[in-house]
Amino acid sequence: MAITRLPSAGFSITIRIAVPADASSIGRLTTSVGEAGAIVTALDVVDSDPTHVLVDLTCDTADASHADQVVQAISALDGVDVRKVSDRTFLLHLGGKIEVSSKVALRTRDELSRAYTPGVARVCQAIAENPADARRLTIKRNTVAVVSDGSAVLGLGNLGPAAALPVMEGKAALFKRFGGVDAWPVVLDTQDTDEIVSIVKAIAPAYGGINLEDIAAPRCFEIEARLREALDIPVFHDDQHGTAICVLAALTNALRVVGKQLSDVRVVVSGAGAAGTAIMKLLLRQGVGDIIAYDRQGALHRGQEGLNSAWQWLAENTNKENYSGDLAGAVRDADVFIGVSAPNLLTGEDIANMAKDAIVFALANPDPEVDPREARKYAAVVATGRSDQPNQINNVLAFPGVFRGMLDAHAEEFTEEMAIAAARAIADVVGEDKINPTVIVPSVFDARVAPAVAAAVRAAAQNPSPVPAADPGPADLPEIAAEASATP
Amino acid sequence: MAITRLPSAGFSITIRIAVPADASSIGRLTTSVGEAGAIVTALDVVDSDPTHVLVDLTCDTADASHADQVVQAISALDGVDVRKVSDRTFLLHLGGKIEVSSKVALRTRDELSRAYTPGVARVCQAIAENPADARRLTIKRNTVAVVSDGSAVLGLGNLGPAAALPVMEGKAALFKRFGGVDAWPVVLDTQDTDEIVSIVKAIAPAYGGINLEDIAAPRCFEIEARLREALDIPVFHDDQHGTAICVLAALTNALRVVGKQLSDVRVVVSGAGAAGTAIMKLLLRQGVGDIIAYDRQGALHRGQEGLNSAWQWLAENTNKENYSGDLAGAVRDADVFIGVSAPNLLTGEDIANMAKDAIVFALANPDPEVDPREARKYAAVVATGRSDQPNQINNVLAFPGVFRGMLDAHAEEFTEEMAIAAARAIADVVGEDKINPTVIVPSVFDARVAPAVAAAVRAAAQNPSPVPAADPGPADLPEIAAEASATP
Repeated sequence: MAITRLPSAGFSITIRIAVPADASSIGRLTTSVGEAGAIVTALDVVDSDPTHVLVDLTCDTADASHADQVVQAISALDGVDVRKVSDRTFLLHLGGKIEVSSKVALRTRDELSRAYTPGVARVCQAIAENPADARRLTIKRNTVAVVSDGSAVLGLGNLGPAAALPVMEGKAALFKRFGGVDAWPVVLDTQDTDEIVSIVKAIAPAYGGINLEDIAAPRCFEIEARLREALDIPVFHDDQHGTAICVLAALTNALRVVGKQLSDVRVVVSGAGAAGTAIMKLLLRQGVGDIIAYDRQGALHRGQEGLNSAWQWLAENTNKENYSGDLAGAVRDADVFIGVSAPNLLTGEDIANMAKDAIVFALANPDPEVDPREARKYAAVVATGRSDQPNQINNVLAFPGVFRGMLDAHAEEFTEEMAIAAARAIADVVGEDKINPTVIVPSVFDARVAPAVAAAVRAAAQNPSPVPAADPGPADLPEIAAEASATP
Repeated sequence: MAITRLPSAGFSITIRIAVPADASSIGRLTTSVGEAGAIVTALDVVDSDPTHVLVDLTCDTADASHADQVVQAISALDGVDVRKVSDRTFLLHLGGKIEVSSKVALRTRDELSRAYTPGVARVCQAIAENPADARRLTIKRNTVAVVSDGSAVLGLGNLGPAAALPVMEGKAALFKRFGGVDAWPVVLDTQDTDEIVSIVKAIAPAYGGINLEDIAAPRCFEIEARLREALDIPVFHDDQHGTAICVLAALTNALRVVGKQLSDVRVVVSGAGAAGTAIMKLLLRQGVGDIIAYDRQGALHRGQEGLNSAWQWLAENTNKENYSGDLAGAVRDADVFIGVSAPNLLTGEDIANMAKDAIVFALANPDPEVDPREARKYAAVVATGRSDQPNQINNVLAFPGVFRGMLDAHAEEFTEEMAIAAARAIADVVGEDKINPTVIVPSVFDARVAPAVAAAVRAAAQNPSPVPAADPGPADLPEIAAEASATP
């Protein structure tokens, strides 16, 4: 039972149409668009003569096939002639979304001789003598590589590097907009783990941090682990750590809403891929009551055959009662459901069977694990990844501030303390007096978020406090997994 | 006999000084700076009290040790207290010289949903279905990688990737300033040829062109050749092709000045590294009378032992009379000397022994192969790489327009026709009526240059005309050389 997709600006089209210049034609036009389920957002007259009017009608549609239906509905009107259909999203992408700008003026010979030869030679020599100066005198100070091999682009799958580029450009634009970070897309025409590791190591001198993005699990774990070991700049896999930070932030406030403690709750996580694994590690580190990890092969439990090493570790360190049944059974009496997996795995009835004051984070995009309208009938707090529902859990709450803080601290690695500090900062932006079941995370446009996250991460980098570890601790979780898992 | 280095803005310092508030102190201060050989460019009062004035004195010096001398001279003055010395070149480099900017607004949810999820997904899918769309819908349309391994940074040698970064940033700033091209520094922490080739191949999907920079010869030849073979975007090694284009442009106008034809002149090239080899290939292709190639092992000639394959080819296809003597002997009666090698290899007397109306391009930086003041006593036309001498031959005349043209043409490779077209365009900007012995190339700030070069390169890309080849043609020059050569 999929939630209906609503018209959105992401599928906005502009249709150039010639209509008869009579009293009713434009009314018939906008009525037909409305009847076709689209929302008219603009109507501009482009040209006219005594008998006809040429208009640009802009409307939000639900998706590409809905846009086609809208155009067909207009074409079917008497006397109406569709001349051209423009897709605003494609228009916006023409020529790419980011550019490289010079921060220095190059108007005169003097300016040229300071920014380039001969003046630049002294700066090069200073860095050669003291490599740490690169963080002061070059773009390394403020620049992050957004690295992808295009193997897990959004929810679309393995589209390759060129098709991943618009996402990485968008990410770079978000980094600048929300964190003041200069981010550059590095899309790689290889999906070989060794090659990706050696390339990122080789390009690292220009960067103050590495943001891995849309790399399929389990390859992403090995790449991240090897790069963390090799590099003296932070390596952050947003699909893992960004998601985990945002989920911990949202869960912190959701628990405040229902008045429960993390140490008391039982959590079911659907999807033990990149995001799910990182979420579970962070919750275990924070002392969660219990977790059942769920993936395509069922509930991870001790004695199960055919688990890769990451899943094996989860099986041994979660699931206290060693449950091995289905997902619907797992969520029965659970306090929290976190889905980073696939659409429509649960029904409203399943949610009704959860513990009192249940918390449901159904984050699969665009179609959640359970219809959020159904879930809200039975759960106390419901969150999704969708922008058209309350409580959108969106990684843009985390990554700009996390990197802002790490760059400002000249951090050499991303740590669990930083993740926990960032999550607390995001949760605390909402404010105790503003929290309610529909407001557990701040808006992505809340200007307080990134500075708060940056300050918290910077403090964590400069005053690292040891986090008490269980034994064997989740920090011992082998990062290198040998088999594929469901990727959210 | 080195040419004296003059004070320049590249070595500008600002000195904060407390001086007594009497009638003569500031006069003593500026006099002492002038006597120390520096040029005062600004004097700003920062603070004052009844007995003292605090001033910021900014002056151009000749180099770092000269700057120290100037500061010492000031410190030695009675009653004067030097508080702080700031280097304006270093100040300008703080935080790097380029930044990444978003071309799209991200103010509202609608704008976010077009530039990022969910709207961006459709753009990704369109590129996955038709990869050529990446040139339309991503930064590939206008973006060039400036790739260096830091092995031959300016004239400074093998400084490594971090120390090369300020040069590559400067280059990126010049690309934008003069060509409207978005260029991004890719400095590589490896000097292994195979690894560099595989890295550049892997990162190529985001770029519409590759500009190799400051990579030592002969490795640069193999890297360039293999990348040209592997990639469907142009690969341009600026140290080779940019220099060759500018030299051909300057030589075209210099020959106009003296009324000689390229097919009649004998040319001596000092330095058979990256730049020299590219210059010679282009001149041979253009039908030059004869060339003697000179490097550390002497004049390249047939029968010589120990030549690498590139030098062997040159030995077989230049030097008609198989000259094997010293450089001074080689330039005797030569029409043209082109130096891309090392300082002070020739004297004024050597230039006096050249043919009537000799042309001397002494391009070693900062100290030319011959003192240009001496050379001008005997040669008809003298050019250098220095900005403080007439006829500066500077690659910025070529590369911004060359890439502008290639990007606009969606060119898949850089060709010799483009190089020749670019050189003609640069030469023709000067105008027949403006040419004289001190004006054979346009100013780097001449706004007509880059558009003219871009138009010429674009036309050459869109209407390639076969260039008649000698047999064996210089196109057969093996690009893969096995041994090191002198790098200019």
